Order: sequence, then structure tokens, then C-alpha cells
Amino acid sequence: MAAIKVYGSVISTATQRVFATLYEKELEFEVVAVNLGAGEHKKQPFLALNPFGQVPALEQGDLKLFESRAITQYIAHEYADKGTNLICAGKQMAILSVWVEVEAHQFDPVTSKLNWELIFKPMFGMTTDTAVVEENEAELAKILDVYEARLSVSKYLACGCFTLADLHHLPNIATLSRTQCKKLFDARPHVSAWVADITARPAWAKVVAMQTNH
Amino acid sequence: MAAIKVYGSVISTATQRVFATLYEKELEFEVVAVNLGAGEHKKQPFLALNPFGQVPALEQGDLKLFESRAITQYIAHEYADKGTNLICAGKQMAILSVWVEVEAHQFDPVTSKLNWELIFKPMFGMTTDTAVVEENEAELAKILDVYEARLSVSKYLACGCFTLADLHHLPNIATLSRTQCKKLFDARPHVSAWVADITARPAWAKVVAMQTNH
Repeated sequence: MAAIKVYGSVISTATQRVFATLYEKELEFEVVAVNLGAGEHKKQPFLALNPFGQVPALEQGDLKLFESRAITQYIAHEYADKGTNLICAGKQMAILSVWVEVEAHQFDPVTSKLNWELIFKPMFGMTTDTAVVEENEAELAKILDVYEARLSVSKYLACGCFTLADLHHLPNIATLSRTQCKKLFDARPHVSAWVADITARPAWAKVVAMQTNH
Repeated sequence: MAAIKVYGSVISTATQRVFATLYEKELEFEVVAVNLGAGEHKKQPFLALNPFGQVPALEQGDLKLFESRAITQYIAHEYADKGTNLICAGKQMAILSVWVEVEAHQFDPVTSKLNWELIFKPMFGMTTDTAVVEENEAELAKILDVYEARLSVSKYLACGCFTLADLHHLPNIATLSRTQCKKLFDARPHVSAWVADITARPAWAKVVAMQTNH
């Protein structure tokens, strides 16, 4: 099997999603740094890997993939027998898909906006829009109420085991936990326990270390 | 196998995605109409099916699913041997996942905003925001340039066959084709041929008929 190359940036939450999956599966991989500040993701040769100009992309011999959640699914299925099992069998896989979609269409849009306002705008010297923050905090609170109910009857989102559905949340949770939004997670006991559990995974610690060493 | 019930509305593009998949798989199903105008999707008993209060939801015996793309994936995998094959084997499945994610994260956000401004706002007596339309038309043009390049080397998005990756686009394409945005599809020969091909499928004609008979 050809070597796995991940093109991306350690500060990109979407790239972190792929790194976390590779570490959970105990796979060797090479990181090809894409300099986002220099706009390398919007130029060739990166556009040949992802014509939409977004990190990450994966290359393994002739196989070229982009979109972080497509990459994690490929890794989870292709290396099903390696490391942590991140998928389910049969009908339970349908429940896993539901929560993968919830992350993508409910959790991610709101938390990405909050990360942009509270972390990335200040980082780039831009002004946080407090109205946008308030609106999205209210949305996030409603979403987390649903998570609280789910996690009070299921240890993890899809089932009793940690899966891709949980893993996909890690980058945005970790980033938001450094902001005022942490209180929204802390206020819900089952959500709070789930956050503590999934962020303590050794694979995630390796992703955090990549950022620290950056 | 217990009967399949789809809770939703024939005017909801997300519900249409599920109907199209069921027709492609030649499966019998019961439609349970959810009255969006009356806000039934934001109340019990619907919230027990989807706590986020959005149509569609699927119920089949004990199995309860929501999020349209999770439902279509369940149907495509669970009934792999029935009707049209909508998925691929092995590494090609990874390419299919990429284009499923492209629809969800590139195409859908932009086309949903355009549908809202150009179709649904006028329907509800609200005023279209022309600045939002212009901005999203420019975004859609860039996205369709990538589709044009892809469809010039591959008959369908994932491979040489019609799959879920194409099907997921149908509702928003059909709705936008009734607006000024049609020109963006028409201007690109491979995109235009693909739109003509996928909207002519008998399964999609059945979904269109459901709206006409509504």
C-alpha cells in the first residue's frame, strides 16, 4: 500500500479531523504543510488535489481525496481492522450516519462561525461581531440541549462506543473550549463528561501536540 | 421487513432527496405529511423523530432516522441489490464520498441561499435581497466551473454511473432551474448535459409528480 500523504495545516480544524482519524487507526502518514497565510491552498499545485482550494487533501498513490469527512470515512472503512474501530455494523451504521450528518449540518456551521468570530478574527487583527456571537451562542445552546438528551441515554453519539460521529466534533470543541463558549458545554453534565472523555483520547493528544510544536 | 414511513413535505427539497432515493430503489413507502406552515415539525410528535425539528424523518419498525443524507445512505446500502445501484465498491466509494461531501458543503449552502431568496421569500411575501443573490450567483458560478471540469472527464460526479452523489443535487437543481440561475447551468455544456440527464430519470419524474399533485 502506497504511503499516505496529508496536505494541510495543523491550525486547520478540518485537517485536524483527518490527523485524529489517522492516529486512532495507528497509521503512518506524511504531513505536507500547506501555507494558508501565503495562500498556497488557492494556487497550483494544491488546486490539482482539491479544485475548491481548501485543506486538507489526501494522496495515496493514484488515490486523491479531499473534503475532511470523506477522507475520515475512507480511512475508517479501508483500515477497519487497524487501531480503534470507528464505524458500526448494519443498522447501527445508519444511526452513526445520522450523527455524522448532525455534526456536519447542525454543529459545524454554528461552531465554525463562533470560532471565526472568537478565535480567528482576533488572530488576524479583525473585530469580533458580538451580535453574530450572541446569535450563534443561542443556537449552540439549543443544539447542545439535544446532545445532552442523546448523551443521557447513549455513552457516545452513535452507540456505546467512540466512533467517527464523536471524532468529527473534536477540532471545533477543542478550539471553542478556549473561549467564553466553554460555559455552554460545562453547563450540561452529559455533554461535559463526553467532552472530557473524547478530548482525553491519546490520539487527540497527538493532534494537540502537533499544534504546540508548530 | 417493517414498512418504510417518510415524514416530510413534498415541497421540502430535503424530503425530495429521500423520495428520489426510494423511487430509484423501487421501494414501497408511506408518506406521512408534516404541515410545515402549521409548524408541525417544531412540535411533538415530530420532535420525537427529529429533535432538531427538520423534515424529513424515516421510521421503519424500531429504526428512526433523520438528516436526509443519512437516510439516503441507509437506503442505498440496506437495499443495495434493489433497483438502481447508487453506491460503488472499494476505492471508488471514497471518490463517491468526496462528491457527496462537495454537494453538502459547497453546492448546498449556496444553492439553498439562492432558493430561499428567489423562490421561498417571494412565496412567503418577503423581499428578495439582490445583494445576497449576486454574491451567491458568483459563488455558484465558481462551483459550477469545478463541476464542468469534473464532468468533462467523468460522465457522472463519482464515476461512469449515476450514484447518490448526483442524486443529492436533484432537488436544489430542479428548484433553481425555475429561476434566473438556470443560465449558470446552461452556460456550461457538460454541466448542462448532466442536468438534462439526471432530471430526466423516471424516479425524479415521480418526485416532480408528487409536487404537481400536491
